[in-house]
Amino acid sequence: MNVLTDNGSIDIRAVWFENNCVKMIDQRVLPHKFEIIEFKDYLDVAEAIRNMTVRGAPAIGASAAYGMALAYLQGADLSKAAADLKSTRPTAFDLFYAVDRMLEASENKENLVDAANGYADKIVDKCRKIGEYGAELIADGNVIMTHCNAGALATVDIGTALAPMRVAKNQGKNIFVYTSETRPRLQGMKLTAWELLNEGIPHKIIADGASGAVMRKGVDMIIVGADRIAANGDFANKIGTYDKAVLAHELGIPFYVAAPVSTFDFSISSGKEIVIEDRSEDEVTEIDGIRIAPEGCSALNPSFDMSEAKYVKGFITEMGVLAPNEIERIRKASM
Amino acid sequence: MNVLTDNGSIDIRAVWFENNCVKMIDQRVLPHKFEIIEFKDYLDVAEAIRNMTVRGAPAIGASAAYGMALAYLQGADLSKAAADLKSTRPTAFDLFYAVDRMLEASENKENLVDAANGYADKIVDKCRKIGEYGAELIADGNVIMTHCNAGALATVDIGTALAPMRVAKNQGKNIFVYTSETRPRLQGMKLTAWELLNEGIPHKIIADGASGAVMRKGVDMIIVGADRIAANGDFANKIGTYDKAVLAHELGIPFYVAAPVSTFDFSISSGKEIVIEDRSEDEVTEIDGIRIAPEGCSALNPSFDMSEAKYVKGFITEMGVLAPNEIERIRKASM
Repeated sequence: MNVLTDNGSIDIRAVWFENNCVKMIDQRVLPHKFEIIEFKDYLDVAEAIRNMTVRGAPAIGASAAYGMALAYLQGADLSKAAADLKSTRPTAFDLFYAVDRMLEASENKENLVDAANGYADKIVDKCRKIGEYGAELIADGNVIMTHCNAGALATVDIGTALAPMRVAKNQGKNIFVYTSETRPRLQGMKLTAWELLNEGIPHKIIADGASGAVMRKGVDMIIVGADRIAANGDFANKIGTYDKAVLAHELGIPFYVAAPVSTFDFSISSGKEIVIEDRSEDEVTEIDGIRIAPEGCSALNPSFDMSEAKYVKGFITEMGVLAPNEIERIRKASM
Repeated sequence: MNVLTDNGSIDIRAVWFENNCVKMIDQRVLPHKFEIIEFKDYLDVAEAIRNMTVRGAPAIGASAAYGMALAYLQGADLSKAAADLKSTRPTAFDLFYAVDRMLEASENKENLVDAANGYADKIVDKCRKIGEYGAELIADGNVIMTHCNAGALATVDIGTALAPMRVAKNQGKNIFVYTSETRPRLQGMKLTAWELLNEGIPHKIIADGASGAVMRKGVDMIIVGADRIAANGDFANKIGTYDKAVLAHELGIPFYVAAPVSTFDFSISSGKEIVIEDRSEDEVTEIDGIRIAPEGCSALNPSFDMSEAKYVKGFITEMGVLAPNEIERIRKASM
């Protein structure tokens, strides 16, 4: 991704391996500070996943793969490392997938650093393809709405939901993006707006509750990411996604989910089987560490929600844009 | 309304007239500070309406009526005062209604302080009736969702959307309330949660984007206020209301709008004629004066949205609970 720094533009990934360390952009301090953190112990990588230094399903997957690579260099028990890394976030399917891939590589006597780098490169390559397929859906002058951050920060590089926008922009199309702020953690305002700014894509931030009103002003399509997609096309994504899916359906606006095929979890037949994590209520009652709610009041903080396949016009994947009833084809192809 | 202070509980209104002054609870500093401001010049009352020291359609109406009373005591030109007060907020129909009522009272040679007190008392009396009619819809054990603050703070006392909850609680019904925080100004988190806490009604705050997910967890009804209702039942209310109306419709959850009959604007036939104000983008990019958005990014901040009558199960008014197709009856009765 492009990042404008005091020393000019740099091209950087959200997470990578260098000098026997895992390095990450600290997404908790964006957009006001741009800082790189490095880790030498896989347990610290697990903590970074847990405390959301890194977030977004594919970037979490790559971080976990790199965590396994560190554990391998540390000579740690890889099955314990796998369990430690898998226990960090309950909803992110990519996390389990990546760790299992590294265990497989270890069984095959591969160098896990190479295997993790290969895993990360593969994600980026998929994002590039998602961008190319998705950009075909975007016409010059289109207005697009997105939610949370399914950008380069979330996917090592390029992004999933933001990939088609990046590619459309590079194709010379004029696009305009509405990014909803995404309370409680404000990733849409802090991260997606930051990426769009760094890429030079015109955009405006909106409150989450303005989604319907802004769609009615004129939005040509919605593109969001996904943390987990069931075999029938039901999917889990950041809280607020379901509201947008229903609104887009009501208003007849095409709603797309951009995600690599690895996000499909064919072991679950529908969204009913997706476990939704409740996170700390402080994320709602406080903003950036400042108490906003009255003392004595509490909050409920479901971190994800689940939207049924019927709301989805298409899944933008590295294998093309698929309607929910075409998922079966992907399942067969990926077996 | 009940307010728990360091010196015990007090019973207080959001705005009142005392010793030739207009007095108001400063709603901008709630919930962390409880402060009363007093005004001796009607222009300062106009500014208080503009800067949201007082907010909520009926409380704005009462404040404007008291502003006219001040102008009358000041010996000001009442038609200029009327114009000054009317220019403060474009969407609040009650504002225009209250000012016109005071001009009428002036033509009838009434004392405008008495007229304004009468106007405020009438609002409170209507809220009491809204509470009584609305409480009939609430069963013991019900879970209710509301948005923004249509409480005592917004309506001088008792509230509109919160009135049925206050009455149900006083009837000994166990209820539970979800209040969505209502970005950008967070009135649901700061004001509604504060009122519920002070009344001893169990509740939790949620992010606006969690509305759909929480409705699916189990919500028996939605009750919101309204700033303006067209003759056909389309209505304007705080941004985020439309999203909830559509979600409730999709999920088959009854959606009620609690408002006095004065909120009906029979001069407009549908919601298409309602002008929606965009407020400052700083309300989105900053929270409590702290910049959250990346420097260089901007926001769109529609302050209200419009929901069609088809989403409304009933309007809870002081004349009873009316289906949208019963509004005509109210129009005839109010003529």
